[in-house]
Amino acid sequence: MKKIGFVRTVLVENPSLTDNTADAQRLEKSLQKELDTDQIRIPLHVLKKLPSNLRVWSFKARAVLFKDRYSWIVVDLLDSMSNKPVLGTAIDIGTTRIVLSLIDLESGREIGEKGFDNPQAAIGPDVLARIHYSRQNTGLTELNYLVTEAVNKNLAALCKEHGYKKEDVFLIAGAGNTAMTHLFLGIESFEIIKEPYIPCVNIPDTQPAADLNLDINKNAMVFLFPNIGSYFGGDLIAGILFSDLDRKKDPSLMVDVGTNAEIVVGNKDWLIACAGAAGPALEGGVSKMGMTAKPGVIDQVWIDPDSGELNIHTIEDKRPVGICGSGMIDLAASLFLSKRIDIRGKFSKQACGDRLFEKDGINYFILVDENHSATGESICLSQVDLNSLTSSKAAMYTILEVIVRNTAGLEFEDLQKFYVAGTFGSFINPVSAISIGMLPDIPMKRFKVLGNSSLGGAKILLQNPDAFERIMKIRQSITYIELNVNQEFMNMFSGAKFYPHTDQSLFPSLKNMI
Amino acid sequence: MKKIGFVRTVLVENPSLTDNTADAQRLEKSLQKELDTDQIRIPLHVLKKLPSNLRVWSFKARAVLFKDRYSWIVVDLLDSMSNKPVLGTAIDIGTTRIVLSLIDLESGREIGEKGFDNPQAAIGPDVLARIHYSRQNTGLTELNYLVTEAVNKNLAALCKEHGYKKEDVFLIAGAGNTAMTHLFLGIESFEIIKEPYIPCVNIPDTQPAADLNLDINKNAMVFLFPNIGSYFGGDLIAGILFSDLDRKKDPSLMVDVGTNAEIVVGNKDWLIACAGAAGPALEGGVSKMGMTAKPGVIDQVWIDPDSGELNIHTIEDKRPVGICGSGMIDLAASLFLSKRIDIRGKFSKQACGDRLFEKDGINYFILVDENHSATGESICLSQVDLNSLTSSKAAMYTILEVIVRNTAGLEFEDLQKFYVAGTFGSFINPVSAISIGMLPDIPMKRFKVLGNSSLGGAKILLQNPDAFERIMKIRQSITYIELNVNQEFMNMFSGAKFYPHTDQSLFPSLKNMI
Repeated sequence: MKKIGFVRTVLVENPSLTDNTADAQRLEKSLQKELDTDQIRIPLHVLKKLPSNLRVWSFKARAVLFKDRYSWIVVDLLDSMSNKPVLGTAIDIGTTRIVLSLIDLESGREIGEKGFDNPQAAIGPDVLARIHYSRQNTGLTELNYLVTEAVNKNLAALCKEHGYKKEDVFLIAGAGNTAMTHLFLGIESFEIIKEPYIPCVNIPDTQPAADLNLDINKNAMVFLFPNIGSYFGGDLIAGILFSDLDRKKDPSLMVDVGTNAEIVVGNKDWLIACAGAAGPALEGGVSKMGMTAKPGVIDQVWIDPDSGELNIHTIEDKRPVGICGSGMIDLAASLFLSKRIDIRGKFSKQACGDRLFEKDGINYFILVDENHSATGESICLSQVDLNSLTSSKAAMYTILEVIVRNTAGLEFEDLQKFYVAGTFGSFINPVSAISIGMLPDIPMKRFKVLGNSSLGGAKILLQNPDAFERIMKIRQSITYIELNVNQEFMNMFSGAKFYPHTDQSLFPSLKNMI
Repeated sequence: MKKIGFVRTVLVENPSLTDNTADAQRLEKSLQKELDTDQIRIPLHVLKKLPSNLRVWSFKARAVLFKDRYSWIVVDLLDSMSNKPVLGTAIDIGTTRIVLSLIDLESGREIGEKGFDNPQAAIGPDVLARIHYSRQNTGLTELNYLVTEAVNKNLAALCKEHGYKKEDVFLIAGAGNTAMTHLFLGIESFEIIKEPYIPCVNIPDTQPAADLNLDINKNAMVFLFPNIGSYFGGDLIAGILFSDLDRKKDPSLMVDVGTNAEIVVGNKDWLIACAGAAGPALEGGVSKMGMTAKPGVIDQVWIDPDSGELNIHTIEDKRPVGICGSGMIDLAASLFLSKRIDIRGKFSKQACGDRLFEKDGINYFILVDENHSATGESICLSQVDLNSLTSSKAAMYTILEVIVRNTAGLEFEDLQKFYVAGTFGSFINPVSAISIGMLPDIPMKRFKVLGNSSLGGAKILLQNPDAFERIMKIRQSITYIELNVNQEFMNMFSGAKFYPHTDQSLFPSLKNMI
């Protein structure tokens, strides 16, 4: 069975008086053949003991390899008879949460996973605040230190949990948004948030881990997924890789619903992307309104078929403390389908009854009263919150329309798959999202929640070097369109601010429900 | 005027909302155009402050560049308005002596040169002894430290002498024999001297200076000339570059006469090389018999046209202390032309008269008597010394015959240029060398002494990046032949042990002199 991973057994031709080329060049020759490439880099530390190692190992070695844009790199060379573990780590470098996955590079098997909050949150909750902070004296160094030290600590712990050493980790593949990628590299990031929104780098080189202060194997190398621009990062390239969007025959779509909405539509022949950071509509978007998922948070809301009342589910079935974004979408859908909110997204006093109260001229809908909440205070949805959700769902739908219909020239029905990426997206109930007109009304089986696609893509690279060229090809072939918030966009946006839409024919499946 | 050096002024396109690619990729684009390449490497340290630097510099920068086998490297990026010096250093990494040349990379001008003895001599006078030592515990580290520290010290002094700082040095191009190159890199070298004579590396990558413990600019990069094999090193590739052998229409030859004789013959279409380490004849060769050049050493000997006596010249006209290799060749030629030695290379008692004495059955020729020497002892040439010289000169001629006639299928007359490389070679008088049958009898004007061609080649690279491809092409295109010391070689060698040769028709210019 031919190995396809980053760890290969290499047979180096024995030297002789008739073949007296250098050890390094004979190793190169074997690897060139094995890897079908003419560009191999053998770093100094591998050269240093190459002659004695090759001879002790009878010219058979385990090569730990990695890639950069131009060449293969011999990260390290080990005795083929040793069973020293060779691990890689995939990292989802999230703004809020960072997740590590430990991979056995030889078998491709995932050994374990570990998530932790991004400690940069102490500086600022979002990338905007952090990038502003990075302009201060030692701000960038501090931010970089926070994230790399947290990775070091948690990665060492993850290794230990599974009986490995941190020195067993030879490769890292990380994916994050453009800002997080910059902060991880410790490079200036402030032009990202200033017009005309220029990242420092789109395609970071594969770097020695030591240069990034990552405390793993001393020869380890790190690859960070490239980005398309300031608002379309490596996490999304990883997502495309994970969803296989770039290999589909029929057009499909991937959307990452977060603070921004990033969307890619396409197939094996073309990819079009846009990010919803251009318009003000998504500011303070869907995910911001709700709480982060934790025990007691309401993550599901539905209409009781018998009583017509709203039922809730909380994480770990604890007494409710608040509501998260996915719960909010469920709630809005339930309120709309039970006519408690009208097509304009306004509370109906009549339908809500005593669940509604007014304070300072603002209507509040009581989801959980103070007697049933964990906090002793009622859990409410205000008209202001609802308006914000309405704007967000309208912006999402409008952006989807712009990219799918106006740009790609497709109908939503043409999309064979509709991937929902990102942590937030993974909790959304597509039925609810369609009910409020946030997502298009296509058959339910075409929706697929990807989960942590950023981590998933990074894992794929560690499991299959061929993914490297796919990543570069995806990056190269994406047509990134700037969202143009012009009159046409605003008209479409206005239509989408209704429930589900001014044009109800766009949502045929709701016909019998409304 | 278009610059062609490693320092270029680069204009980076201003970013805009319609061109919002990353700073690094816009820099790449400019450099790709400027350098006509698609492979540019921008290291992390350049990225770190790229956004603010580009903006402060109005998107105009001085790029300090270097090359490796596959790509161009952005070594550093400077303000285009600054007049900070950007220097390079060419190094001849000689076994006995190391020579540094400081180059202004912008003008290509040589600022100054500095030579010093290779401090590894304290460990062993030749590469053999050093390589043996390198096998001991910390031997390799010690040897490496000796040479790099000496370079650091002398380079800092050279910079200071000319009003520069060591931090002004961004690039190093070094050329040495294969063993010295290995010891400079700190990589295992002992397979070089063990059958089948395998170097660790033939084509070292361009390395960060910091990885080689070179204390110059912290971002500096180092290129070491590649080698062909254990006995044909980067110093000779540098020599070919320096002599332009690889660009000649007509065949020419370069020979480096030292402990070994390394020879290249060829033109722009082909290059054939061999090294004289294969035969025992050159062991303890020409250069070893004499002293190293220093004041009082006899470096020239000639027959007084009036008296027929031998005249000598000493370095700095001091009282004689001994004789160096070039003086020895002059001496042998003078002795032969004055018939004091016969065609077999034996002293003629009759012709030498009272200059000859016998001790322990060995004849000695008194060149300087004890009254005229600086040591109080006479300076003599023994028959044993002379036999050794005879073997050496015969080996040299035989190797030249093998490569020019037997291998390349040329006559010596076909060689349009005959380059003599190496420190020792630069002192040889070609007339004397022809007279004893060491070098072929071709017109004097075709001989050209190259001087320090190893340093010269390294300088050329720093002055012209195009030389990089020439170097790789030279390395790639050389056919290296192993000297086969078979019966035919021994027959040719026997003929060449006569003065000038058994076949006197090979030396027509001597006809009237003998």
